[in-house]
Amino acid sequence: MFLPNLKKIAVIGGDERCCVCANMFSESGYECAVFGLENSEKLCRATKCASLSDALSECDALVLPVPVMRDSTSINAPLSDKKILISDIVPLIEKNTLIFAGNPGKCFYSALSAEGLENTVINYADSNVFSIMSAIPTAEGAIAEALGITGKTIFGSNILVCGYGKIGKYLSNLLRAMGANVYAGARKDEDLEWINANSLHPLRTNALAQCDIAFDLIFNTVPSMIFDEELLSALRGLPVIVELASKPYGVDFEAAHELGIKTVVAGGLPGKISPVTAGEIMYKCICRKLCSRESAV
Amino acid sequence: MFLPNLKKIAVIGGDERCCVCANMFSESGYECAVFGLENSEKLCRATKCASLSDALSECDALVLPVPVMRDSTSINAPLSDKKILISDIVPLIEKNTLIFAGNPGKCFYSALSAEGLENTVINYADSNVFSIMSAIPTAEGAIAEALGITGKTIFGSNILVCGYGKIGKYLSNLLRAMGANVYAGARKDEDLEWINANSLHPLRTNALAQCDIAFDLIFNTVPSMIFDEELLSALRGLPVIVELASKPYGVDFEAAHELGIKTVVAGGLPGKISPVTAGEIMYKCICRKLCSRESAV
Amino acid sequence: MFLPNLKKIAVIGGDERCCVCANMFSESGYECAVFGLENSEKLCRATKCASLSDALSECDALVLPVPVMRDSTSINAPLSDKKILISDIVPLIEKNTLIFAGNPGKCFYSALSAEGLENTVINYADSNVFSIMSAIPTAEGAIAEALGITGKTIFGSNILVCGYGKIGKYLSNLLRAMGANVYAGARKDEDLEWINANSLHPLRTNALAQCDIAFDLIFNTVPSMIFDEELLSALRGLPVIVELASKPYGVDFEAAHELGIKTVVAGGLPGKISPVTAGEIMYKCICRKLCSRESAV
Amino acid sequence: MFLPNLKKIAVIGGDERCCVCANMFSESGYECAVFGLENSEKLCRATKCASLSDALSECDALVLPVPVMRDSTSINAPLSDKKILISDIVPLIEKNTLIFAGNPGKCFYSALSAEGLENTVINYADSNVFSIMSAIPTAEGAIAEALGITGKTIFGSNILVCGYGKIGKYLSNLLRAMGANVYAGARKDEDLEWINANSLHPLRTNALAQCDIAFDLIFNTVPSMIFDEELLSALRGLPVIVELASKPYGVDFEAAHELGIKTVVAGGLPGKISPVTAGEIMYKCICRKLCSRESAV
Repeated sequence: MFLPNLKKIAVIGGDERCCVCANMFSESGYECAVFGLENSEKLCRATKCASLSDALSECDALVLPVPVMRDSTSINAPLSDKKILISDIVPLIEKNTLIFAGNPGKCFYSALSAEGLENTVINYADSNVFSIMSAIPTAEGAIAEALGITGKTIFGSNILVCGYGKIGKYLSNLLRAMGANVYAGARKDEDLEWINANSLHPLRTNALAQCDIAFDLIFNTVPSMIFDEELLSALRGLPVIVELASKPYGVDFEAAHELGIKTVVAGGLPGKISPVTAGEIMYKCICRKLCSRESAV
Repeated sequence: MFLPNLKKIAVIGGDERCCVCANMFSESGYECAVFGLENSEKLCRATKCASLSDALSECDALVLPVPVMRDSTSINAPLSDKKILISDIVPLIEKNTLIFAGNPGKCFYSALSAEGLENTVINYADSNVFSIMSAIPTAEGAIAEALGITGKTIFGSNILVCGYGKIGKYLSNLLRAMGANVYAGARKDEDLEWINANSLHPLRTNALAQCDIAFDLIFNTVPSMIFDEELLSALRGLPVIVELASKPYGVDFEAAHELGIKTVVAGGLPGKISPVTAGEIMYKCICRKLCSRESAV
Repeated sequence: MFLPNLKKIAVIGGDERCCVCANMFSESGYECAVFGLENSEKLCRATKCASLSDALSECDALVLPVPVMRDSTSINAPLSDKKILISDIVPLIEKNTLIFAGNPGKCFYSALSAEGLENTVINYADSNVFSIMSAIPTAEGAIAEALGITGKTIFGSNILVCGYGKIGKYLSNLLRAMGANVYAGARKDEDLEWINANSLHPLRTNALAQCDIAFDLIFNTVPSMIFDEELLSALRGLPVIVELASKPYGVDFEAAHELGIKTVVAGGLPGKISPVTAGEIMYKCICRKLCSRESAV
Repeated sequence: MFLPNLKKIAVIGGDERCCVCANMFSESGYECAVFGLENSEKLCRATKCASLSDALSECDALVLPVPVMRDSTSINAPLSDKKILISDIVPLIEKNTLIFAGNPGKCFYSALSAEGLENTVINYADSNVFSIMSAIPTAEGAIAEALGITGKTIFGSNILVCGYGKIGKYLSNLLRAMGANVYAGARKDEDLEWINANSLHPLRTNALAQCDIAFDLIFNTVPSMIFDEELLSALRGLPVIVELASKPYGVDFEAAHELGIKTVVAGGLPGKISPVTAGEIMYKCICRKLCSRESAV
C-alpha cells in the first residue's frame, strides 16, 4: 500500500508498537519522522527528530499511540524521558493533517477542538477488525500470565473464561487446544450454543455461583462487576483470577484478597508480549482507514 | 493406592515437586517425614523433621529428588539452607529400605554400594511413562519461555521444532494448535510421515541448511550437536533459539552469539513452571514402581 | 423439563426427526399422540393414532415438521402412505392449541387464518439457537457427501467453503481439523479477520475469480448466485461443488454441467444423516419456546 | 523422480489405485503399459495393451495390486472382465524384471519360484511409511462408514477406538477433532499415556468390560478377538461396531448379531473412498523402494 498523496508521516510518543509501525511506514516508502521514542530497542528505520516542530513540520499525517493519553495533559510516551504536552503539539499541527489516534478521550478532543482540528481525528482502534486482530496477542499474553501461576499445567486444568466476546472466543479455543477443561461463561443463548458447538462447556454468567466446579484458573473479559464478594465466596477452591478486562473491571479485588484468592490485572498485553505483531496491527488498521478515506474522496 | 506393607516414607531434599509428592503420600494415608524442604511455599501436609535421623528412622521407603545430586557430594536441595551430604544419609538407611531416586548417577551409586544398598535403588524417572507425562509441563514451559521472546505472536510465526521425540511431538502439536506454521525436523522416514499426517511441515534434520524458510523461533530437543556454526550461518534471518535438550546440548551457543542469534537454555521446566503437576507425575511414577514391585512379589 | 399445564401433545407428519421428538415428549411425561409416521423405523414410545381426530382431540400442543409443507395443500409426511391435507387438520384444531411448525410459509398461514388460528403458531426453527445447533449435523452431512466424491482424502485437499455464516463457520473448522487446506469466502472485513484468526485462508467472495488456487472441492452455503458461468469458467481445474444452500441456490448448475464440473445438491442433511440428533434439536427448541412462553405468562 | 535405467513399466490388474499409479508413472516420463484395467473410470494416460504379452514385453518393472491375489490362482483384477491367471503371467516375465507386489502371499511366491523369479519381488506395502500414509484414507473411510450409522452426529457421541496403532492414533484424533467424546483402548502403559496426552480418554483393553460408558459407536482396529460374547454382553446399550481390522478380525459377529448389536466390516477403505490418494501412496512407496534399490547398487 502506497498512497502518493501522502508524503510525510509523523509518529509521536507510544511504546514499541509505534516504533514497529514507524518502521513499516518507512519501508512502504513514506518519509517517516518520529519524536518521543528515543529509548526504543527496536531499530527504527524512521528519522528521529530533535524537536516536535521538526517532526510535525509539513507532515500529512500524524500517528499517535493507543491509548493517546494516560493523563489529562500529555501524550502517552513510555519510551521517552521527556513529557510531551498535548498543548505543545496542537499549535504545530497544520489544518489538513490527518490525526490518527488510538481511542482518544475527552481531554484529547477538547485540546484539538480549541484549534479547530477535531474533524481530522481518526480513531484507528475502534473497529471490529482491530479488536479481532488484537484478540490474538491478548490471548497469548493471557497464556503468558497464566503459565506458572497455579503451579499446574494448563493441560488438565479446570479453567473458566468469563465473557464470550472477541478475546473470550479466541482465548477459550486456545486453552482447549492446550488440553484444558474449558468452561466459557456467557449470557446470550446464542453464545452458549456456540460455546457448546466449539466443544467447550457453556455456563450462564448469572448462574456461576451455582456451578459446582473447582476452577484452577479464571480469566475475566467482562468490564463490569461479575466476581463480586458473593460470587467469589461461592467459588469452590481458590482459583487464580486473571483480569483481562479494562476499567471498571469485573472483579472485586479487595474481596478476593480477603478470601485468599490471588488476582492478576493483565492490561495492555499486546504491547507487552507481542509489540511487533501489535505494531503491525496498528499499521494495518491505519492503512485501512487511509485507504477507505482515499476511496471515499 | 495404599500399600499396607508400607508405613513410613521419608522425602529428603528436592524442589517444590518433592513437597507436592510428600503431600500426596500423606493424603494417601502414609506417615510421611520430610527433611531439607524448609523453604517450601507449598503448605506441606507431611511431618517436617529436625534431623536426618528422625526422617530416616524406621522408614520403609526413601524418596530423593530428580536429579538426585547436582554435585558429587550432596543431595539436590534448593529449598534448604543446609547442605545435605550423601555421606550423612547413607549410614542412616536401613537394609531393606526402598530408595526412590530420579536419574541417579555414578557418584550416587558408589556412595550407596559402599554400604551394600545399591540393590534397593529404584529410578522412578527412567520410564517412557515418566517422559511422556513430563513432556506436557516441559512443552508448556517452552511456550512460557517463547511468549514475548520474539515480539511476535506464536500465531502466524514460522517455528521449527527440531527432534520428534516425546517433547518434540507434544510441543509441535501445541504450537500448531496455537496457530503457528510449524516445521518439525526428524531423521527417520516414519517420523517424517507422522509429522505430515499431523498437519505439520516435515523437514529432514540433515537438510535443514537447505531449507529456505525464515524461522522466527527454533526449539531444539536433540541432545547432540545439530545447530553448529555451519547450520547457524545458513539460517535465513535471526531466529531466537530455545534449547530444551540437556547436555551436551544441540546448539553451538558461542557461534550463535557471534552471529547475533539469541539463545535461551531452558532446563528443568516442569519443576519451574508446573511444580504441582510435576510433583503429581513424580508421585504417580513412584506409585507405579511400588505397585509393579508388589505384584512381582 | 415438564410443564404441568401441558398434558397432551400431538405430532403429525414429518420424518424420523419427528419420531425422535415424539419419543422424547413421551419420555418427559407428556401424553404424546402421533399420526402420519407409520413407516418409521425408530421405535416410537408415543401412541400411534388411527385418525387425525384421535390425535388432535383435546391436545394442548400440536407439533408439525420442518418444513411444514412441501406443496400447497398437504403436510410434509414422508413416513406416511397417506396424504395429510392441511384442510383436514385445521377444522380439528381447538382454539388455544399451541401450533409448533417449522418454517411455515404463506399457504400454511392462510389455511390457519381461515379459522382464526394463526396467532397460536410458533415457528421453532427460526431462532439462532436452532440454526447453530443444526449447523453441526449439516456440516457432518456435508462431510458424508464429500467423502469419496473426489477420490482424494479431505486431508491435504484444497477446499473452499463459500459463506461464513453458521454452517460455513462450523464446516470450515471441521475441514481444517481433518487436515484440509481450507479457504473460506466471505464479504465482510470482520468475517475475513475471524477466518484468519481461525487459521483458515480468507478469500473475498467478490474476488474468487482472481484467486489462483486449484480447488478440489467447493462447498457453497450462500443462497444467492455466486458461482455463475463467469466464476465457474474462471476456476482452475474441475472442483466438485457441493451445494448446501437452499433455493434459489448459489450455483448455476447448468453452466457447471456444461463445463464438466460435477455438482451435488445436498439439502435436508440433518434429517438424512443424523435424525436422532436433529430430532433432539427439534425437541429442545420446542421446549425453549414453551418455557419462554410460560415465563412470559 | 525419474530413473533413466528404467524404461518400461507394466501395471497389471488392480483397482482404480493402480490406474492412478499408472497415470503417475506415465506423467513421470516412463513408458507405462497396462492390462486388466479396462473398466476403469479414471482416464488412464498409460497405454492399454490388448494382451498380457504386449504389456510384459521388455518391461523393466511389473506393478501388481494390493493385495496381489484374492484367490489361489488369479491376480486381483476387479476392473477387468477377464480372469488373469498367475500361471499365464509368470512365463512372460523376464529374468531381471522388478516385480512390485502388495502384500504377496504363499501362492504368489510359489508360482514365481517355479520360474526362479522370487528374488526380484518387492513388497511395496510392508513399510511403516506405507501404513502411516494409508492410515489417513482408512480413517476417513471409517468416518464415511460411521456417518449416518447411529442416527446421531459424531459430535457429542461416545466413541471407542480399540487399538492404538497407526489407524487407531489417526482415527481417534480425527474423531476428537469432530467433537466426539473419544475413548481409546490400548494395552501398553506408554500408549495409555499418549492417549491421555492427546486429550482422549484412555481405557485398558483388557478391562473394557468393567468400563461403565454407554458407547454409541465402536471402531475396532485390532486383528485378534477382543469383542467376544462376554465383552459384547457386558457393553452398556447397543453400540454400532465398525470393524476396521483385517482377518481374523476382533469381533464375534455372530454373538453381536444375537445380542442385537449392529456390525459393519469395513475393509479396503483407501481403495474405495480415496482411490486417487491411495494410488498416489502406492506410487510414492514404489518409487521409494526403487530409489533405495538404486542407491544400494
